[in-house]
Amino acid sequence: MRVDVLAVGTELLLGQIVNTNAAQIGERLAAAGLDHYHQEVVGDNERRIAEAIRRSVARSEALIITGGIGPTKDDLTREALCGAAGVEMGFDDEFASSLREYWESRGREMPESNLKQAQVPAGAEMIENPKGTAPGLKMRVSGAWVVVLPGVPAEMIPMLERDVIPFLQGEAGADTGVVVSRMLRTWGESESKVGETLGDLFDAARNPTLAFLASAGEIKIRITARGASKEEAVALIAPLEEEVRRRLGPLVFGADDETIEAVVLGLLRERRWTLGNAESMTGGLVGAKITNVPGASDVYRGAIVAYDAAEKEALLGVSHELIEEHGVVSEEVAKAMAVGAADRLDVDVAVAVTGAAGPTAHDGRPAGTTVVAVLTPEALMARTLQLPGDRERVRLFAATGALHLTRMALQGVSWGT
Amino acid sequence: MRVDVLAVGTELLLGQIVNTNAAQIGERLAAAGLDHYHQEVVGDNERRIAEAIRRSVARSEALIITGGIGPTKDDLTREALCGAAGVEMGFDDEFASSLREYWESRGREMPESNLKQAQVPAGAEMIENPKGTAPGLKMRVSGAWVVVLPGVPAEMIPMLERDVIPFLQGEAGADTGVVVSRMLRTWGESESKVGETLGDLFDAARNPTLAFLASAGEIKIRITARGASKEEAVALIAPLEEEVRRRLGPLVFGADDETIEAVVLGLLRERRWTLGNAESMTGGLVGAKITNVPGASDVYRGAIVAYDAAEKEALLGVSHELIEEHGVVSEEVAKAMAVGAADRLDVDVAVAVTGAAGPTAHDGRPAGTTVVAVLTPEALMARTLQLPGDRERVRLFAATGALHLTRMALQGVSWGT
Repeated sequence: MRVDVLAVGTELLLGQIVNTNAAQIGERLAAAGLDHYHQEVVGDNERRIAEAIRRSVARSEALIITGGIGPTKDDLTREALCGAAGVEMGFDDEFASSLREYWESRGREMPESNLKQAQVPAGAEMIENPKGTAPGLKMRVSGAWVVVLPGVPAEMIPMLERDVIPFLQGEAGADTGVVVSRMLRTWGESESKVGETLGDLFDAARNPTLAFLASAGEIKIRITARGASKEEAVALIAPLEEEVRRRLGPLVFGADDETIEAVVLGLLRERRWTLGNAESMTGGLVGAKITNVPGASDVYRGAIVAYDAAEKEALLGVSHELIEEHGVVSEEVAKAMAVGAADRLDVDVAVAVTGAAGPTAHDGRPAGTTVVAVLTPEALMARTLQLPGDRERVRLFAATGALHLTRMALQGVSWGT
Repeated sequence: MRVDVLAVGTELLLGQIVNTNAAQIGERLAAAGLDHYHQEVVGDNERRIAEAIRRSVARSEALIITGGIGPTKDDLTREALCGAAGVEMGFDDEFASSLREYWESRGREMPESNLKQAQVPAGAEMIENPKGTAPGLKMRVSGAWVVVLPGVPAEMIPMLERDVIPFLQGEAGADTGVVVSRMLRTWGESESKVGETLGDLFDAARNPTLAFLASAGEIKIRITARGASKEEAVALIAPLEEEVRRRLGPLVFGADDETIEAVVLGLLRERRWTLGNAESMTGGLVGAKITNVPGASDVYRGAIVAYDAAEKEALLGVSHELIEEHGVVSEEVAKAMAVGAADRLDVDVAVAVTGAAGPTAHDGRPAGTTVVAVLTPEALMARTLQLPGDRERVRLFAATGALHLTRMALQGVSWGT
């Protein structure tokens, strides 16, 4: 089944936002074994949206549209869909009532313009939006399926994963088979090195196939198999997964949706150890990542963000003599921050991050220099990393790096990799 | 002059990279006053690239293609251009010699595959690439201009700015003018309410035009004008901006690239006040946002993340009697957290966030309940918000909400909106 993707929004054409939705959808279509050859972007113009829909349904079996279904007057995808399909606009009274109830439950009066979201082209079905109020739409146009999703990625992606991809896979039918993907997640080596280690497997792979994906310092290895049934596809993946894991050893920290923060919390929970942290360059990002995991509170106690050097002494007991001798971006200071955090927060395991986020050098250390220290009941370790990229990227890599080094410390994996 | 944009690359369709080139080009076309209504993406497939070229030259006066002109076998844009234009492939001996010289000057032997870059469709002109070896191409196809640039942004952008935009502006002639956009950023009202408040302006707007964009709790209003000169376009925007600001009043917190964290830091810097914060449900996210702004360190001192209830007493001095009486998710506790943070961190302004991030209720308060308190040398305030969405979204909205309420406290704007 060929699936096209169309993004609607003048802000995309003006370059005010980047079309990440197309990449998110493309990645999931590929994983689902659905063919995808065309992406388009048009602005908030009813005629051009309708023309783009007609172009797609003429060449492909399905089209996923993102954007243009909000409550304001420049949201025109519903109208264009009516135009392309040659149908009238309907209205869903039941959904309109549920919208009113939603606003009332939040103690606010609903602006009438929200009722635009209850408009449904004749013959279209609504797709539930668990993260927002604008429902998606699904309808048949000239023999092809047209699916409309919100432009906001946080709303679009869950609807895509939960409803749209399984639906299109079902429509694609028996010739597609079932495609199952397994993602192994690694940290600590470059993409080229991981690629070389698995090079012969990559060349030999037909079904399952291997793919590499680098994102935010992680290298992911995706194993994708197509089988007549899910069981068959899973069975095809197993031996290749085993071989990949054997070669990569402790570089692999998790699979599929397991984030490093969930892995770290799991390891600590097993041992009944509590966790706290001290931060400087990351300003709270390590704690923010950890606490994004539901149920973190049974392990995680809190953090001290000592952004200013004087706060490192006041809040963490890091002496200014130590800071003067070694500099704030040093393994000595990072270790003292971890020890101070463990003491003040009364936790078993403490992780500390200090560094130069950029854009300029900090305390004589070039931008990107990051020091992580981990204190456990068994050891106190520190490591210096040189991280690439701009300030935002360095901070993100520093926060994830701190979590990865915590994982390695807890599992007794060498930090020298 | 209408200009289309086509990106070539299977990696874009697979979602392995995001099409930032389209946004970069779109932004520069808008600034140059060139119309831009269509963007497309196709993979490394000669037939589909050629079809996309034919589609564009039929509807627009120019097409900018990025990608597919490297030295490997899957680089097929030159061949597709020959196909779409119905011309033969030529070869530029002079450029081939310069390529060899380039490799020799670096003391390396040139792989023969690089000679692909000396291929030129009959009738095409080369565009110099100051940052790489693959030159661009420019040729007339069915009465339209087709421009081909490398897919690597660092090579593409300088060629675009130096050659392509001025060339297209020249071709477009005097009727083009200049397009200028102004973005007003608001917080505190729904998109539908903002849309209604400005509804008649939206309907009446021709030049400048109005558009709405919702992202992460912010509603943005874009005013776009076309004028003969930049000054004329700016002058067209001014009265509409003034009217929008008059109607929205203190909802508008900034313009264009100003983030709420930068606005808050700016307001504090003016008064020479220092900032610190206490967090619970957000786990460090407020501090992480603030410290993402370069130069935050002259205002921001640090944070205490008291995730566990006991830490609120140990680290912030919030008595457990107060917590027992009002619950951890209460205005009383949030205020006590702000007071404790100001004391422990020795800062002038402290902001505190506590709440139930979800997915389940916390201490009897439903998921999404968020309490923000702000202490300044002039006042101590707290407010309870009911935030929509899942855990990640609630936490993000809570962190930005805390910053917005801090802005309002500093500017003496009512929190009742």
